[in-house]
Amino acid sequence: MELVMKPIGILHSPFTDKNQTPIQSTRSQVSGYVEVFPEFAEGLKDLEGFSHIILLYTFHQSDGYTLQVKPFLDDRLRGLFATRHPCRPNPIGLSIVRLLTRRGNILDVEGVDMLDGTPLLDIKPFVPEFDVRTNVKTGWYAQRSKE
Amino acid sequence: MELVMKPIGILHSPFTDKNQTPIQSTRSQVSGYVEVFPEFAEGLKDLEGFSHIILLYTFHQSDGYTLQVKPFLDDRLRGLFATRHPCRPNPIGLSIVRLLTRRGNILDVEGVDMLDGTPLLDIKPFVPEFDVRTNVKTGWYAQRSKE
Repeated sequence: MELVMKPIGILHSPFTDKNQTPIQSTRSQVSGYVEVFPEFAEGLKDLEGFSHIILLYTFHQSDGYTLQVKPFLDDRLRGLFATRHPCRPNPIGLSIVRLLTRRGNILDVEGVDMLDGTPLLDIKPFVPEFDVRTNVKTGWYAQRSKE
Repeated sequence: MELVMKPIGILHSPFTDKNQTPIQSTRSQVSGYVEVFPEFAEGLKDLEGFSHIILLYTFHQSDGYTLQVKPFLDDRLRGLFATRHPCRPNPIGLSIVRLLTRRGNILDVEGVDMLDGTPLLDIKPFVPEFDVRTNVKTGWYAQRSKE
């Protein structure tokens, strides 16, 4: 079974080299913008009331994957699905960014951690009641070797 | 440009009717399990250290979309991307569930809000440092008409 996805827009950031891209949006205060293709712009109505949005996109420069990887923050091999490594069977990236303004089909955002030109798959509003968990254990990450 | 995704597993829940499925995992304490296809099981190593995981999947019973929808929790039309409605151009679902145990390629989880048989696209560890935001504004959701 195959699922075909088509980008709904393009993510714009200052990052053109994957080795110089922040590893997570919480480690970035860099501004960028989301270009939603005009045919989807109507779906952005009401989004400006939200301070944070979830971007789902493809890691378009990822090339294949292995099932164990060394995370950026550790020096031991970890199971791929226990990491946020970009090279995955379905290379879907997830970033939560701050929404600054909407200008028609353009969203100005802060906290970008993706490459310029990244294909956008979906936008969802970030809602703490749905998206925040407390009393969380984080396995190897809590004992990671790097900051 | 088209992107082809292939499921890495199947999500199992008691829900077979989309009208009786919880609208978010935070509103569910129901148990279910994640079946990861055996060829990907090695990638689950180290995941058992995490108490919560992010599941990305397809809303496989969604059928088309409109760019304005009435959310389950409101009675006014809202821009689709300002909602978590399942009918989207790329119908990718996102749920954060509690990971109870791993048995080989099976993950027992709590807080399922997806239909039985849902195709799984990706698993990521939930890491508060990456995934939690504070001082959040939630637009229409804060003024919603329903609970």
